[in-house]
Amino acid sequence: MFVTFEGPEGSGKSTQIKLAHQFLTELGVPVVITREPGGTVIGDQIRETVHHVKNTEMSPVAELLLYSASRAQLVAELIRPSLEAGKVVLCDRYADSTLAYQGYGRGLDLTMLNDITGYATQGLKPDLTLLFDIDVQAGINRRTIGGEEMNRLDLESIQFHEKVRQGYHQLAAFEPKRWIFIEADRSIKAIQQEVKVILKSKLGL
Amino acid sequence: MFVTFEGPEGSGKSTQIKLAHQFLTELGVPVVITREPGGTVIGDQIRETVHHVKNTEMSPVAELLLYSASRAQLVAELIRPSLEAGKVVLCDRYADSTLAYQGYGRGLDLTMLNDITGYATQGLKPDLTLLFDIDVQAGINRRTIGGEEMNRLDLESIQFHEKVRQGYHQLAAFEPKRWIFIEADRSIKAIQQEVKVILKSKLGL
Repeated sequence: MFVTFEGPEGSGKSTQIKLAHQFLTELGVPVVITREPGGTVIGDQIRETVHHVKNTEMSPVAELLLYSASRAQLVAELIRPSLEAGKVVLCDRYADSTLAYQGYGRGLDLTMLNDITGYATQGLKPDLTLLFDIDVQAGINRRTIGGEEMNRLDLESIQFHEKVRQGYHQLAAFEPKRWIFIEADRSIKAIQQEVKVILKSKLGL
Repeated sequence: MFVTFEGPEGSGKSTQIKLAHQFLTELGVPVVITREPGGTVIGDQIRETVHHVKNTEMSPVAELLLYSASRAQLVAELIRPSLEAGKVVLCDRYADSTLAYQGYGRGLDLTMLNDITGYATQGLKPDLTLLFDIDVQAGINRRTIGGEEMNRLDLESIQFHEKVRQGYHQLAAFEPKRWIFIEADRSIKAIQQEVKVILKSKLGL
């Protein structure tokens, strides 16, 4: 089972995926946790380039191709072999991030994005996607207060992040069976509890 | 005018492009020289990743997408603005390298490669391509003797480099007007002379 965690910056998904990983491990479920961009040695080098705050000259097409390269490597090296070995894979961001950020956010052509993404992943789609949904300003506030490492995308405008959020809603509407909305403007504990219930149900635990 | 220099490793094209650049500069022609992967700050970071000899686990799809990302950045940041400013652009490798190496060499689907390449370059094709053609073993010998920096692709088999060479021949056969073959197993001086004659004729100097 391949589960992705999606949502805007500051939605708390990175905290929740770690808690979910810990929870499944404690239950004895064979589980792998990873993230995008990155998750492999090569992917982490790409992450450095794509997130570096100095790389403000990056063209939107180059950015898309870098994310896709990192994803191709992650699928080939880690995700597909882990799924084939019967493991649950939890991934912090995946192809839907590209559609939401580069497609809806930056306005790149969605058909081309789908083609490139399909090629990068060799057609591998998540079985379940948890969308950590939060008001854009609330997400940004959290991010700033949380003292987390800021990246190049944090420097984008509120309007950009608003388009990303609407993009996620659109993507979820296209495939309602795959997506589950999680109201992310709540305590870590409350959200963690909801994620546990969802995973137990979906994994039949 | 956009001129690309293509050919297998050890064909001497990187030496010749520098000499051509010097020659055109001395004639007072506004000219820009660049290379792939790289040529921009972001592209050079990608070059590091894609050429690093330690990155042997790189998936063919990830490799293609990294080259394409570097190319997208180079076109957007340097090549297109330079051409629009009326400059001659000389580029050491371009989209044909992807078709030759990833397509003919690694066997990736040529239609998909053309789509991704077209997207990365936003349709920008060279006006003239010089193919530095050399017997594979002769090229490898030169490369080893020359003491140049070795990269990840130098570690590929002779068979791989043979397929690349045949790929270049095929590409040239498809668009004979754009390509000029240069017999590269000759002295630097003899080749330099031939390149001068070609450029003078094509640029009407």
